[in-house]
Amino acid sequence: MNYSSKILEKAVAEVASLPGIGKRTALRLVLHLMKQPKEQTHRLTNALNTLVSDIKLCKKCFNISDTEICEICANPNRNNKVICVVEDIRDVMAIENTAQFKGLYHVLGGKISPMEGIGPHNLHIEALVDKVKNEEIEEIIFAMSSTMEGDTTNFYIFKQIEKYNIKTSTIARGISVGDELEYADEITLGRSIVNRIPFEKSL
Amino acid sequence: MNYSSKILEKAVAEVASLPGIGKRTALRLVLHLMKQPKEQTHRLTNALNTLVSDIKLCKKCFNISDTEICEICANPNRNNKVICVVEDIRDVMAIENTAQFKGLYHVLGGKISPMEGIGPHNLHIEALVDKVKNEEIEEIIFAMSSTMEGDTTNFYIFKQIEKYNIKTSTIARGISVGDELEYADEITLGRSIVNRIPFEKSL
Repeated sequence: MNYSSKILEKAVAEVASLPGIGKRTALRLVLHLMKQPKEQTHRLTNALNTLVSDIKLCKKCFNISDTEICEICANPNRNNKVICVVEDIRDVMAIENTAQFKGLYHVLGGKISPMEGIGPHNLHIEALVDKVKNEEIEEIIFAMSSTMEGDTTNFYIFKQIEKYNIKTSTIARGISVGDELEYADEITLGRSIVNRIPFEKSL
Repeated sequence: MNYSSKILEKAVAEVASLPGIGKRTALRLVLHLMKQPKEQTHRLTNALNTLVSDIKLCKKCFNISDTEICEICANPNRNNKVICVVEDIRDVMAIENTAQFKGLYHVLGGKISPMEGIGPHNLHIEALVDKVKNEEIEEIIFAMSSTMEGDTTNFYIFKQIEKYNIKTSTIARGISVGDELEYADEITLGRSIVNRIPFEKSL
């Protein structure tokens, strides 16, 4: 591409370095910004700079937070005896959106994946084991993604906390609400038959 | 969405204000930046800030430029008697990529579109007419998009410069190189038959 401007070329290259954004999309975005009042670009760049400099991870659950302890951990109305273990802060958002969970979270920051060079020590597993050891936890809910890496991570943590004799559970896998059985994959359908629940509980 | 962080929420909202970027994509991009070294975000934001503060429009052709007069207009090897009229700086890039045009450009900055409230006075048409009047122009090539607005713009400019008796042309419309006739739309195919060229010229 001939951009006839080094400044434009640099801006396009930087935007195109974001995942899923190609050169053409980057150019479109950059030209859009050029047509807008400068203030819009300044608002965008300030928001991003503030993000990388000011955002913190909650010291207790490793969720992102503007403060040392996140809103969820700091909320006295939440049940601090039940901890939901998730991979990523996006999972926290997803579960919070359901408004069905009133306990606390523990964000691992990934899952054990030897292929990507991520071992247990790259994740916030030790802090979770410490919580189980030192606090009055009643239940650990595993809400990892249903993949080999997710299952491995669950199992690794389970082995670490087994001896403390607390309740552990995983979120239910099954057919999505509203889905047709014929389109479900066999593993999901198979699991949802094996793990069937009493009818009166499903009402 | 519950972002559990005002800083994150603001960054996502700003990124999502870009065209074609939804909240989910914005969140993905922002979380990506958070995982990268801070320097990457600073490079991105600096490039964008520099863009909106330093980039200029060439005083002669209204192409974007790092300098008062753009590289193309300043190049003594280009034919300054032939001017290609385009809508947008992206069109300049597209034509430059073909390496088939050695004249200069004139970027209108849009096309006449009463529906969008864009009249001739919102475009760089007057400067083009002045060029035709005051400089030794031999040919004006209209390379606007082939839409009603593009045709209207061409016609409006043509009427303004008709009296100066210079050669005017439009870029050829026809079947794309490599395309199958059966998939071409009727208007394009029809035009390409009407505007057929001598066979020996197509070699």
